[in-house]
Amino acid sequence: MPRWQPGARERLQATTLELFVEQGFEQTTVAEIASRAGLTERTFFRYFADKREVLFSGQDEFEGMFLDHIAAAAPDAAPFTVVVQAVRGVSGEFFPTERLPFSRKRQTIIDAHPGLQERELLKLSGLTEAMAAALRKRGTPEPTAVLSAECGVTIFRVAFSRWVGASEDRELPAIVDEVLAELRVLTATPP
Amino acid sequence: MPRWQPGARERLQATTLELFVEQGFEQTTVAEIASRAGLTERTFFRYFADKREVLFSGQDEFEGMFLDHIAAAAPDAAPFTVVVQAVRGVSGEFFPTERLPFSRKRQTIIDAHPGLQERELLKLSGLTEAMAAALRKRGTPEPTAVLSAECGVTIFRVAFSRWVGASEDRELPAIVDEVLAELRVLTATPP
Repeated sequence: MPRWQPGARERLQATTLELFVEQGFEQTTVAEIASRAGLTERTFFRYFADKREVLFSGQDEFEGMFLDHIAAAAPDAAPFTVVVQAVRGVSGEFFPTERLPFSRKRQTIIDAHPGLQERELLKLSGLTEAMAAALRKRGTPEPTAVLSAECGVTIFRVAFSRWVGASEDRELPAIVDEVLAELRVLTATPP
Repeated sequence: MPRWQPGARERLQATTLELFVEQGFEQTTVAEIASRAGLTERTFFRYFADKREVLFSGQDEFEGMFLDHIAAAAPDAAPFTVVVQAVRGVSGEFFPTERLPFSRKRQTIIDAHPGLQERELLKLSGLTEAMAAALRKRGTPEPTAVLSAECGVTIFRVAFSRWVGASEDRELPAIVDEVLAELRVLTATPP
């Protein structure tokens, strides 16, 4: 019976990111990660399917939080309002300031590797589709559902990329509100 | 010296799509494509690096057309207006109704294959970045540049997916205008 390792998951995650930053994603092996974390490879594989999963392991929880917000919205709320509330909610709950150092490191690693960028794009594309489906379930017609979901993910993506940027020190929900305001101004431009 | 083959490129492209639809992307070989087109494999590779490239070969031209529109816009035009004009322009020039059967087949193939979807997402992400960079060159600050580009690509993507849908028979620029109008209504929703 393996001994339960308190905090093993978090330790493996922190160590993996450290090694990815130091020596690159491709060059890092699970053996190195486990060794630096003072754990066995077997323990690593109890928590993660492979080294890439360390970067994407929270995806179901992340998407689920958006869907929970949409499910909890008032039945008569406008679709775009529902989406914006979900983006603002998840931004505060899933990305508190304590998470910023982790998110910054993670972004640096993803930016350096096209394969990881594709995976991240697919994740956000999946989120868009899931939100559009949740809106359709509320009775939102097309193209309103998909357009609201796309705009919500765009706001999130632009705000998130500013949040992890070097020169930013506001909290993510405040940046979300700024990006939303900017989007409203933009799209109100006369043609 | 290989004999010049009139229309070989178009013939290879049409045959490739036919085979991808009939038997799937993975199952189709370059040998089969060449044989059905009545050409040699060597001729195939004179036009395309691999079978996937048949689906993505117009990418530079596609992106270049958006950038040409942005470069030709009035210097004092608002960033979102510039992007919308580019989307409307490319929609009419690059996707005339004659292209619809090709675009529909291509979409069916991509929808059936996650690897091709990732490639398509990366293409549109590259387009977004290129347009944002072109806007910054015009003096547009951030986050306006990236947000305008993201909205433009969203409008294009949503309109395009309706255009290739089975129940649509309007031209792409008309659908672009409808999606744009819908986006304006949406984002004007009070919070």
